[in-house]
This record gives sequence, structure tokens and C-alpha cells, in this order.
Amino acid sequence: MTTVGILGGGQLARMLALSGAPLGLRFLVMDAATDACAGQFAPLLAGDYRDEAALAEFASRVDVATFDFENVPAESAEWLAERIPVFPSPRALAVAQDRLVEKNLFRRLGIPVGDFAAVAARSELEAEVARIGGACILKTRRLGYDGKGQFRIRTPADVQGAWDALGAQAKTVGLIVEAFIPFERELSVVAVRGRDGEFRTWPLTENWHVDGVLSASLAPAAIDAALAEAAYAHARTLAEALDYVGVFALELFHRDGQWLANEMAPRVHNSGHWTIEGAETSQFQNHLRAVLGLPLGDTRVLGHACMLNWIGEMPAAAPILREPGGHWHDYGKEPRAGRKVGHATLRADNAVALAEALRRAGSALGREAQVAPVIERLSG
Amino acid sequence: MTTVGILGGGQLARMLALSGAPLGLRFLVMDAATDACAGQFAPLLAGDYRDEAALAEFASRVDVATFDFENVPAESAEWLAERIPVFPSPRALAVAQDRLVEKNLFRRLGIPVGDFAAVAARSELEAEVARIGGACILKTRRLGYDGKGQFRIRTPADVQGAWDALGAQAKTVGLIVEAFIPFERELSVVAVRGRDGEFRTWPLTENWHVDGVLSASLAPAAIDAALAEAAYAHARTLAEALDYVGVFALELFHRDGQWLANEMAPRVHNSGHWTIEGAETSQFQNHLRAVLGLPLGDTRVLGHACMLNWIGEMPAAAPILREPGGHWHDYGKEPRAGRKVGHATLRADNAVALAEALRRAGSALGREAQVAPVIERLSG
Repeated sequence: MTTVGILGGGQLARMLALSGAPLGLRFLVMDAATDACAGQFAPLLAGDYRDEAALAEFASRVDVATFDFENVPAESAEWLAERIPVFPSPRALAVAQDRLVEKNLFRRLGIPVGDFAAVAARSELEAEVARIGGACILKTRRLGYDGKGQFRIRTPADVQGAWDALGAQAKTVGLIVEAFIPFERELSVVAVRGRDGEFRTWPLTENWHVDGVLSASLAPAAIDAALAEAAYAHARTLAEALDYVGVFALELFHRDGQWLANEMAPRVHNSGHWTIEGAETSQFQNHLRAVLGLPLGDTRVLGHACMLNWIGEMPAAAPILREPGGHWHDYGKEPRAGRKVGHATLRADNAVALAEALRRAGSALGREAQVAPVIERLSG
Repeated sequence: MTTVGILGGGQLARMLALSGAPLGLRFLVMDAATDACAGQFAPLLAGDYRDEAALAEFASRVDVATFDFENVPAESAEWLAERIPVFPSPRALAVAQDRLVEKNLFRRLGIPVGDFAAVAARSELEAEVARIGGACILKTRRLGYDGKGQFRIRTPADVQGAWDALGAQAKTVGLIVEAFIPFERELSVVAVRGRDGEFRTWPLTENWHVDGVLSASLAPAAIDAALAEAAYAHARTLAEALDYVGVFALELFHRDGQWLANEMAPRVHNSGHWTIEGAETSQFQNHLRAVLGLPLGDTRVLGHACMLNWIGEMPAAAPILREPGGHWHDYGKEPRAGRKVGHATLRADNAVALAEALRRAGSALGREAQVAPVIERLSG
């Protein structure tokens, strides 16, 4: 009997446990919150990642550890990795935790990125904004997610506001200024690499964000085949450089027929939730297969799928459940503004049928705006 | 928040909980065994169905109750149904629990059945065997499953042996003698009926048994369309007569282009396990949707699927995991002779690819005999 420990007990841990149960696995989820939603379907150890006693108990009860949350402190991950197998490795986690280290690695590996620079002082920010020219974004190097810890600099006059908002964090989590990318499309490669180095990706996914939070994903993305191959190659290069084990997502901007890498997420990813029903093997099961050294599952799509995120509160389920390819995912969380509380996946055998399903569901839910860009892409 | 109570904590309860989690449901499983395998992924109330205090606690903690086990005593089901909604109804359960009542109902509804008769004494058995002519099977009316509580009577000389084996049960669970059906094929209709009467079936499944226990299932079964429609109509007639709510299976023998009904199972069924990966909506999720009054999900197949049962102990997982459409289901149970401990489902886009996958997996596992009849059917 193998017990998989998961640091973080949110919806990713929950879906990992649900998809890993058929492999005969047991789980132990660790989270500071006693009501973490993964705890509804797996034993929960309530504790802080930085508490060595809690980590020791966690380590004593699991055979291998992985993450639902990428901002587990590097020291905690390293402490664990000295005692039990931990995948992905603390090194891969550390790279993904720091936008500057990550972007430097992308550049070194030949993965195209927009212009960027570290900034430690207001004067540096001013100089870098002038050097980059055009709009920029000031971001914290660490601990940002879903658009948090970011400030848009449209003109040099915005530098003061940006520094007022984030400057204090230059000495804590660090700051990075990036050229703003006026991208045409946002896509992600969700990929998996096994302990033996086997590498697979699901087809490219196109994503739409609202207020910095993922709103909808469509797979397979309609994209030029050579461009898609280039994206998969970038993901593979990155995974091999990090000796990465497990599922990760590489977020890419598409502009003028070119890719620009945005960031990587060292875990199962929101833009891969559609794989539960839309692919032969889900990202969740393949992450566990990778972490355990089992053969990886087939990543091919079953038709076309669109994932719609539910933020803040769950809408009515019936319009989705009534759709022939409608699948509901309620994470069992309390509603709260800005919180990811669930998602739905609509699956269909072809793009026309998927667009029709999205139109019906969007209308029934009063969420026409959420489905509109996806329908437009499917019809394009 | 809705909590679904499940009487019985085996693999069916386990798969119900796993498939119901995305609906935002909570579960409470009741089983006499403290190590019931559903308890690995849902709260478990250890207790006996006949213990009123335990049942009362169960009732107080759930919103609706259903079954993983059809032999829950009718009085327990009725006691519960007076306090909380119970689906399927105690009446439907009672019919399915008694082979004689069930066969009488089939006959009354025009669902073809082989010859049968109740027997209360050795002399009656002798007379009925003579009247039926040819081979017969003496069975207990209640509490039989997977070929248990049955005795084959090939010639009148076997009557004494049959009575020695089962006669004592004539006064407890009752006995029924049935004409032995030299069937060509065994199939099942797995169907679901909602609280509003909506009725759906998955495509017919063909089944192969070894020693009375299901060994393999194939869906969709290759069968004449008119014959399939007749099978679905029988299932619907039965469901409506019982005002049935939830998933059930109607097991049918096929001979000379005719159906003969064998029995119904008032629950999700082993011959429907392939629906987890092989259909748009699984039998598990649709059972829960039905029980909760939610819209039923689409029952169409995704290609072709074969389920292989693992009895006694789990084989090596790798040969299945390596198959592109290979899906593994380890129930987390201790190995024990004759026990259903898991299953695998192989899914493919067409029959040829499925046959090839079965050939590879059967060979790698040394289970050529288990896959052979399925491959033969796919090639026929």
C-alpha cells in the first residue's frame, strides 16, 4: 500500500486524490486550514508547512510527497526531500517560485521571453522602464499568483504609483519589471515527465483570463502545427533542464506567429482540468503515475473540450448537467469573492457541437460573456 | 450541502463516492466491516444494518440513502424510508431480493423468462424437475449472488444431491427450481431512471462469467438493433412497474434470437464498470444524479470498451497502464480467494484496436483465457 502525501489541500489535491484512488493509492493531505476541501475525500493533517514537527509527522505517514501548492517554502520542501522522495524536486519548485530565476532559465534554454529586469530600487525601476520602452508590469518575484502582486506601468508617469504599491516588497520577495506583451492569444502546454524521463504533453490549450484569473480553457487549441511542436519542444527542454518529475504547465503568449513564455506552474494546472473528461488520461492521474514511477497514460484528446471556471460562487448546475457532454466539478468550498470554487467541462465530438453547447449553457446561466471568446474561436 | 448515505461500503460505494465528489456531495458509508474499502475515501459508520441505533445514527447524518448491497434486510430499508428518502425504494429492493417474486413479476410484465417453480419440499422438487424436463438449477430464493446458493441438476438422479445441499434452506430463504438455459450469450442492460421518470440505458453489454462470477464485459455488444431495442424496452417496463429510481441492471440470456431474463440487480452493477471511461457519463454518477433528482447524464459510449475483473488478487498493473486506453481500478481491498479486488478497463476507438489491446494485455498478464472470448467476439 502506497500513501501519497500532498502539501496543500485545495481543489488540486482533491482532484489528485479522486483520480489516484483507482490506482489503489492512499493519500494524506497537509494544509493549515482544517476545512481544506481535499479533506472531504482524503485524510487531512492540519498543520503549517514551516512547522518541523508537523512536517515530521507528515513525512512519517507517507511514502512519497507532492504539491497542490507551489509556494510551499523551499526549506520545507528540502527538509522533506532529505527524508522521503519528493516530486517535483525542491529545485524545480524553487525555480518556479521566483520569476527572475525562472525567466533567466527560460532565456538560457532558448525559450523566448519578453524583456525583463530585476529591480531593487525606485531609480532602477525608472531606468528599466525607460530602457524597455512602452508599457511594463512590475511584479513581485515570489508569491504572486492569479494576477496578485502586479502593477501595470502604462507610461513612465506610472512608476511612482507602481513603487508605492509594491516597492516595499523589493527587500522581501524581490521585484521584477517585465515588458508588457500585447499578446493575441494565451496558451498553455500541460505536460508530464516520468521518473524515467519519459515526456508527454496534452494538446495545446487556449486560455482566457478575466482580472488575472483563468476564466475559460479550450482544447485542443486551433494552432499551426509547427508552432505547436515548438511549444512542446520548449516544455520538454524546460522539463529536462529541471529533471522535472510530474505534471507542469508552461504558459505562453502568442503574438505575430511567435511564442513568448510567461511562466511555468510546477504542478497540475487549472488549464488542464479539461483532461478529466476530455483526454484519455487526466493530468491528475498522470501526475501520480509520474510521481510513482508508473507508466504514463495516453494524453490524446477525446473530441473537443471547454473548461469554464466558477469564481466566487457556484452557478446553477442543471444547465451544465443537462448538456450531453456536460460535466460538473464542485470543489466543496465555501463561496468567497475571487475564490475558485468549481468548474464545468463541456465535451463534444466536434467544434461545432461544442460551440452549440457553450451557447446553450452560457445563455441558460447568464454567462454569455464568459463563453463568447471561446465560441468565437471555435467559429473562426 | 447534501450528504448521501450508502448502505454497504464495498467497491460500489467507493466508486459512487469518487464519482459523486465532483457533484459537491458528501458521503457516509455504513458497513459492518470497519475496514470496508469505501471508507478509504468517505466517512465510514461501522454498524449492522439490523441495529436500529446504528441505523438511526446513519439516518440522522444523511439527506438521502442508497445501496451498494442489495441484500440489506427489507425491514431495515423500510425503517429508513419512513425517516429519509431512500432510492431505490424498499419495494424495488424486496422484489430483486427474491428470485421467485422477481420471476413472477417478469412473467406478469411480459418479460420472457425460462420455466421456474417454487419448491418447498423434496417431493415438489422431484415433480417440478420432471415437469420442466431436461437440466434444471435449484437456487435459494434470497441471498444468493455470484453463483452461490445454486445447485445444478443435470438429470433426475441429481435431485437427491441438490436437496442435500440446499433443502435445509427451503424453510429459511426459500427455494426455486429453474429450467437450465443453454444460452448462447449473456448480456445485460444497465439502465437508469430518474425521480421524474426519465429513463436512459447504456448500450447493451455482453458478459462472460467464470465459476458464476463476472470475468469480462464488452460494450457496446454486437447485437441486432431490434433485439437491443426489445431489451431496452424490457428494462423500461420493469423500471416503470417498480417506480424504480437509480441505476439497475437487467441480466439477459440470448438464445435462438430470443431474450430470456435471468435477474435484475437493483444497484450499480459490475457489468457497468466500463462506463467510467467508456461512456460520456458513468453509471455511478448517473445513479447519484437519479437519486438526487438531478438531470441524467448522456449514456452514449466513447468508442469500445472491455472490462476485465480481477478476482482474488490484483495482477501486475504495468501491462494495463502501458496500454493507450488502459485504466486501472484497484479497490484497495485485501486479497482473498474469490473476492472482487479490482478491474481494468481497456478503451479504444474501434473494435480492431480494442482486440489488439486485449491481445497484448492478456499475453503480458498471462491471462489469455480471460480475454479470448472477448477477442473472438470482436473479431466475429
